Amino acid sequence: MRPSELQKPALDMSVACPRLTPAALAFPAAVSDYYQLDELLTPEEKSLRIKIRRFMENEVAPIIPKYWERAEFPFHLIPKLGSLGFLGGIIKGHECPGLSATAYGICISEVARVDASIASFCLVQSCLAMLCIAQLGSEAQDKYLPSLSKLHKVCAYAMTEPEYGSDASSLNTVARKVPGGWVLNGRKRWPGNSSFADVLVVLARNTSTNQVNGFIVDGGSPGLKISKIENKVSMRIVQNCDIELENVFVSDDDRLPGANSFQDLVNSLAFSRVMAAWVSIGIAVGVYDACQRYLGERKQFGVPLAAFQLNQEKLVRMLGNIQAMWLLGWRLSKLHSSSKMTIGQASLGKAWITKQARETVALGRELLGGNGIVTDFHVGKAFCDLETVYTYEGSYEVNALIVAREITGISSIRPTTSRL
Amino acid sequence: MRPSELQKPALDMSVACPRLTPAALAFPAAVSDYYQLDELLTPEEKSLRIKIRRFMENEVAPIIPKYWERAEFPFHLIPKLGSLGFLGGIIKGHECPGLSATAYGICISEVARVDASIASFCLVQSCLAMLCIAQLGSEAQDKYLPSLSKLHKVCAYAMTEPEYGSDASSLNTVARKVPGGWVLNGRKRWPGNSSFADVLVVLARNTSTNQVNGFIVDGGSPGLKISKIENKVSMRIVQNCDIELENVFVSDDDRLPGANSFQDLVNSLAFSRVMAAWVSIGIAVGVYDACQRYLGERKQFGVPLAAFQLNQEKLVRMLGNIQAMWLLGWRLSKLHSSSKMTIGQASLGKAWITKQARETVALGRELLGGNGIVTDFHVGKAFCDLETVYTYEGSYEVNALIVAREITGISSIRPTTSRL
Amino acid sequence: MRPSELQKPALDMSVACPRLTPAALAFPAAVSDYYQLDELLTPEEKSLRIKIRRFMENEVAPIIPKYWERAEFPFHLIPKLGSLGFLGGIIKGHECPGLSATAYGICISEVARVDASIASFCLVQSCLAMLCIAQLGSEAQDKYLPSLSKLHKVCAYAMTEPEYGSDASSLNTVARKVPGGWVLNGRKRWPGNSSFADVLVVLARNTSTNQVNGFIVDGGSPGLKISKIENKVSMRIVQNCDIELENVFVSDDDRLPGANSFQDLVNSLAFSRVMAAWVSIGIAVGVYDACQRYLGERKQFGVPLAAFQLNQEKLVRMLGNIQAMWLLGWRLSKLHSSSKMTIGQASLGKAWITKQARETVALGRELLGGNGIVTDFHVGKAFCDLETVYTYEGSYEVNALIVAREITGISSIRPTTSRL
Amino acid sequence: MRPSELQKPALDMSVACPRLTPAALAFPAAVSDYYQLDELLTPEEKSLRIKIRRFMENEVAPIIPKYWERAEFPFHLIPKLGSLGFLGGIIKGHECPGLSATAYGICISEVARVDASIASFCLVQSCLAMLCIAQLGSEAQDKYLPSLSKLHKVCAYAMTEPEYGSDASSLNTVARKVPGGWVLNGRKRWPGNSSFADVLVVLARNTSTNQVNGFIVDGGSPGLKISKIENKVSMRIVQNCDIELENVFVSDDDRLPGANSFQDLVNSLAFSRVMAAWVSIGIAVGVYDACQRYLGERKQFGVPLAAFQLNQEKLVRMLGNIQAMWLLGWRLSKLHSSSKMTIGQASLGKAWITKQARETVALGRELLGGNGIVTDFHVGKAFCDLETVYTYEGSYEVNALIVAREITGISSIRPTTSRL
Repeated sequence: MRPSELQKPALDMSVACPRLTPAALAFPAAVSDYYQLDELLTPEEKSLRIKIRRFMENEVAPIIPKYWERAEFPFHLIPKLGSLGFLGGIIKGHECPGLSATAYGICISEVARVDASIASFCLVQSCLAMLCIAQLGSEAQDKYLPSLSKLHKVCAYAMTEPEYGSDASSLNTVARKVPGGWVLNGRKRWPGNSSFADVLVVLARNTSTNQVNGFIVDGGSPGLKISKIENKVSMRIVQNCDIELENVFVSDDDRLPGANSFQDLVNSLAFSRVMAAWVSIGIAVGVYDACQRYLGERKQFGVPLAAFQLNQEKLVRMLGNIQAMWLLGWRLSKLHSSSKMTIGQASLGKAWITKQARETVALGRELLGGNGIVTDFHVGKAFCDLETVYTYEGSYEVNALIVAREITGISSIRPTTSRL
Repeated sequence: MRPSELQKPALDMSVACPRLTPAALAFPAAVSDYYQLDELLTPEEKSLRIKIRRFMENEVAPIIPKYWERAEFPFHLIPKLGSLGFLGGIIKGHECPGLSATAYGICISEVARVDASIASFCLVQSCLAMLCIAQLGSEAQDKYLPSLSKLHKVCAYAMTEPEYGSDASSLNTVARKVPGGWVLNGRKRWPGNSSFADVLVVLARNTSTNQVNGFIVDGGSPGLKISKIENKVSMRIVQNCDIELENVFVSDDDRLPGANSFQDLVNSLAFSRVMAAWVSIGIAVGVYDACQRYLGERKQFGVPLAAFQLNQEKLVRMLGNIQAMWLLGWRLSKLHSSSKMTIGQASLGKAWITKQARETVALGRELLGGNGIVTDFHVGKAFCDLETVYTYEGSYEVNALIVAREITGISSIRPTTSRL
Repeated sequence: MRPSELQKPALDMSVACPRLTPAALAFPAAVSDYYQLDELLTPEEKSLRIKIRRFMENEVAPIIPKYWERAEFPFHLIPKLGSLGFLGGIIKGHECPGLSATAYGICISEVARVDASIASFCLVQSCLAMLCIAQLGSEAQDKYLPSLSKLHKVCAYAMTEPEYGSDASSLNTVARKVPGGWVLNGRKRWPGNSSFADVLVVLARNTSTNQVNGFIVDGGSPGLKISKIENKVSMRIVQNCDIELENVFVSDDDRLPGANSFQDLVNSLAFSRVMAAWVSIGIAVGVYDACQRYLGERKQFGVPLAAFQLNQEKLVRMLGNIQAMWLLGWRLSKLHSSSKMTIGQASLGKAWITKQARETVALGRELLGGNGIVTDFHVGKAFCDLETVYTYEGSYEVNALIVAREITGISSIRPTTSRL
Repeated sequence: MRPSELQKPALDMSVACPRLTPAALAFPAAVSDYYQLDELLTPEEKSLRIKIRRFMENEVAPIIPKYWERAEFPFHLIPKLGSLGFLGGIIKGHECPGLSATAYGICISEVARVDASIASFCLVQSCLAMLCIAQLGSEAQDKYLPSLSKLHKVCAYAMTEPEYGSDASSLNTVARKVPGGWVLNGRKRWPGNSSFADVLVVLARNTSTNQVNGFIVDGGSPGLKISKIENKVSMRIVQNCDIELENVFVSDDDRLPGANSFQDLVNSLAFSRVMAAWVSIGIAVGVYDACQRYLGERKQFGVPLAAFQLNQEKLVRMLGNIQAMWLLGWRLSKLHSSSKMTIGQASLGKAWITKQARETVALGRELLGGNGIVTDFHVGKAFCDLETVYTYEGSYEVNALIVAREITGISSIRPTTSRL
């Protein structure tokens, strides 16, 4: 073994592997709109999308692999991201854009096309924490929204606990009433953004009512201990954390008056599922774009990889998946906008779309061969990141069973069993 | 062995297996429109659909299993089918309805929901033979359209040959010019309806130009020998045939003046692919309807089959597939209506939708257990019929490669190889 | 419409479609033993297999599509089948061959390679009915075995009921003790062979003990009403029946003394699952053989279908599946022979192997294109027949849950649910 | 945003998330041998396996997630790994163990069960570089083997180039004859171990013969520039590199006399495919072990995850896959030992087994939910690592086409196409 060799200088990649030079690695053009789905969008939706696309391609794509590699968040991007004007999503007023679900879905998808972690950052900010405040908060609490909408402040959403994942409604962080406020105790696992969030929306069980309530917790509160979850293989840029709340005090003003039971949270969770579906659409689209370019450029056996039947069929399957995923996401968003969307419909969209996305990115991973296992070519990262989307906002299985409950009238989520 | 037992009288099924009585076997209600896709249809489209649905559920569903069993066509249904007013499809004038592609797709899907063979009968009549006459025929030849549109006459479309399936454009039935007309010689395989068609559109290679031409051949022409293909496991009601043309004379008046090369046929073939996609959508929808009812009604282990997680997940996957297939078919039809549809877009729709349909009916087959292998419960027949759709109007593979040719600019359909 | 055309004479297929002539349709050579698995067999196993293969290829293959088409059983084959010397399978003595599970599996697989219905006939005769008599019967009842082993008599096995499929142990056909014997009342659904069986092993609930008992019922017993299940899409040659037992008397001599509870039947059911796995191995092998020949012989675009990458990959996937299925079946049979096989191991083999077989025959169906939907080319029939195997002897799901119960110690087969 | 929060102290995980404490994370017991496949091994094979298992579980498992995270190689493990006595694998003499292919496969699988990167390190060392030297080297060159076998020295194998991956035989690194030796120029991509290897076996095209030759290159040679490939999402512990050879001199003594064309390398490549298959078997086994424990320990909705039907079916599918993969690997190894193994047989094993492994680890990833995206629970890492195995030693597609070439006699690997 030659430890001395370990510090060898980097090669000149323009010679060693020209395909790996920055120009060659620029984010590929968007080419997946085979069925002219753009026609289903308004001019405003299209121009907002273009604005986001430019930012993502030019300012995020070139630097983001390194952040994924180091499992760090690119904090310097936050102000620019905030200035794009889509955060806050469907919230109306309070300096929020009041977008339609379709428009916001398009935005999230466009972000995810380049990086799913950044899209998840936006999803947590807009669709979970801010939406809870807007929907379940008091008028006074609306004060949080303007700065959150512009990303002057960052927020997180703390629901999941170490022992309560799919069974989130059983969470057992507790909130005990004390004079002037509440004292929270318990543990959370996974909340994204939480290590640097200015504000956390924390769900806790009211010890009087035994129901789940919601609280706005300052990120600097005494008793709030946060530790980043390390060793991730997916969405490494998202700063998921383990959290301990040890006698964290929250004033009466910071209890969400509309959150009096888990049922009150279901609407925002359903909306976040719609947006999770759009995250996976964006991931799949980005992978397709990368594959189409790669297959055209890279030759083996004297011809472009695009000339192989086996590769062609995969590319076509990906393209078909994407048209279908997009149309399903679009229709689901329209149902949301018409206020007719059911919980089950949101769950079907999330489950089905992420499932197809998973197939799509796996096909893309195959198509890139060895270069599919490095993030430089975009696909390897997307392949890994999709796993998170498949599981968060309700795993595939939980969402499927929620749909089934709605269409059959029978819930099978909570099994009873007999140990032999 | 007791041969004497073979003639035992039939049981009273209302006692022996109440689930198999006619009332229990009535075609199930339509319950698959989970995303309220109906809203995307016009009132006319919806009312046409209801008319067809009633006919199919009430007059076709109760009798059709027996025809499938005997591999016979229910000729007595033809007049009523013709009176429903959708045959002729997108053809305008000449007593044809001039429907949009969407409207016609909805019709075909509604027929296929109950029986895919009848839908294929309609597809051959309307989308292949009639459409060729309308698009490539002379004004004089338009005379055929009114009676065909009302199903006073039946037509067939003879393209495929025993040795030219996927490679249809290489067909080698020949048409030789003679005074006053043409003499056709060659063989065809698969043309549906052809054993009883009044008129066949036959494609043959002009011996002068070496290009494919089209001819309207009378079903009673001397020299036309037709033999029904037996032993089918799929779409047994469709009367596919082997055909020999031995010096079949066609007058100059019956040559399609617009069909001067295979390229001239490509548009109608593309449209037939859109409609084949709608056939598979209809099949999948019918299977879903049957499964949802069956799972709710049939109990095992003391609870409805709908209560099992494994069954629920399958039902949900089917439902997701159907929403996506429908939306893709809808979008594709809109592209057709706007005259922007490419060959590749049609192929993608056909390939992707039939692929998802195949998964969907296989799931349905599983869900019905043993009762999934008899046609009485609707699913067994649909499972088998789908195989034809997967393969006809261009196999999955051929359509995928057609898409790939369009999106990559490289054709890999025709391989060259080296035998070792 | 030209009803007069419907009686046209058959074409001369040697001209119309040479591929459909008898010589061209001869059963293809056995070519799937890519990993020389033959080396794992004894010389006796190999020679028994060759004997069965010759019979199946020469005497069954040419005539069997017509029987499938007409849903009839080829009774004339029974004596010859009986003379091959493998019926009775693993039973020792009483003129039964006393084969190893491996040897018998090889036999069943060889039969299924050409026709799965005949294999299922053998499975019912040997592995269910005869094995019950041999394992649970009295010494006096052994008298049935010699004639059953030579197929001088045919037997059936009546367990499943209209309302008790997967939940077979809850069957509610009853047996009431009367002087000198028992009176049976109830209904059965599915028993193969039963319309012509000389003897039926019938499971019924003893009204005194409330436990499942077994009875040998003469096929000509008064009160036994049997009606063939029509309209099947799979294993059409197997004569499955609906049965009513109305005060059917069985003498004390014909109660199986070893069958005192459902638990007593579990061993023979487990063995029948091993054999069902071998049925599906045989089906897959036959499909592979047909595909390899077809791809080599049929040309499109000027080259054999075997030259297309997409076809090659499918053929290879099928071949890999077959090696793996065979090895799993072989290992499972060895576990059986060593008396160490658990119920769960049998269920895993049945579930996993039939699942892979299903993928394999679907691939084969695709590879044959249009010719994959007629039974003449062997593959269409096999594709349909496999569905039965996937479901009988415990559906895929039930077997999977049986394995899971064994490896996790938790049974989830019987869900409890709450209707909303 | 609160950058100050980013340096918060780590939580006490024994409180915050007890499941993440070292004891809870100990590598799970080996529980996947459901079909008692152990019986097919010799006592020596079993004891060697146990020795490796102990080392991997006790010394590698606890530390390896951190190395994966940092994309570093655990150099300190090399001496102990070398002392286990299996490196050198099937090579006889020269202080190599002379194991059977089965025995070596078992070893590699056992290493991969805990970490696939370490297994790949062994594969490169033993099955590629050392095997080339042993098979194609001179007697004098055998001197390298003893120290390599004990891992006193590390070697690498440099075949793949930036532009020649699947099409490896077209490599264009060149070797020009000069007095006393050869001068090598060119570029390589991917060679594992190469940044710290003492010795590299480099393939280069002899400029005189235009054939591929092999050379033993000292890791410290002037002109050899090596740069580690960064940003991997899979097998991050393997030190893959980009390499430039700029006038690297190799003496005549270090040219492999047996490597005179690419054909001469095919045997060792085939063997490395057998071993790659065993790597994926080991990965799948480790994932199964982790899942079975996790499902039993983790509760949701008041019951263990193992009680959910959807989870049970997945676990069973994984278990079935593993039995089948193992048996296929075992049979393939026996074919190798009997000197009858063909190139195609090796390719089938590699392609089919890695494909099933990919399904298996994806199922495992699902089963672990959120905890499936961190390496601490073993499954997330395995899921990512499998992607490399799916692609290296010939991608799935290339191996499938190699099999197809052998069984059909037609090569479709090198397409010819027409750009439109």
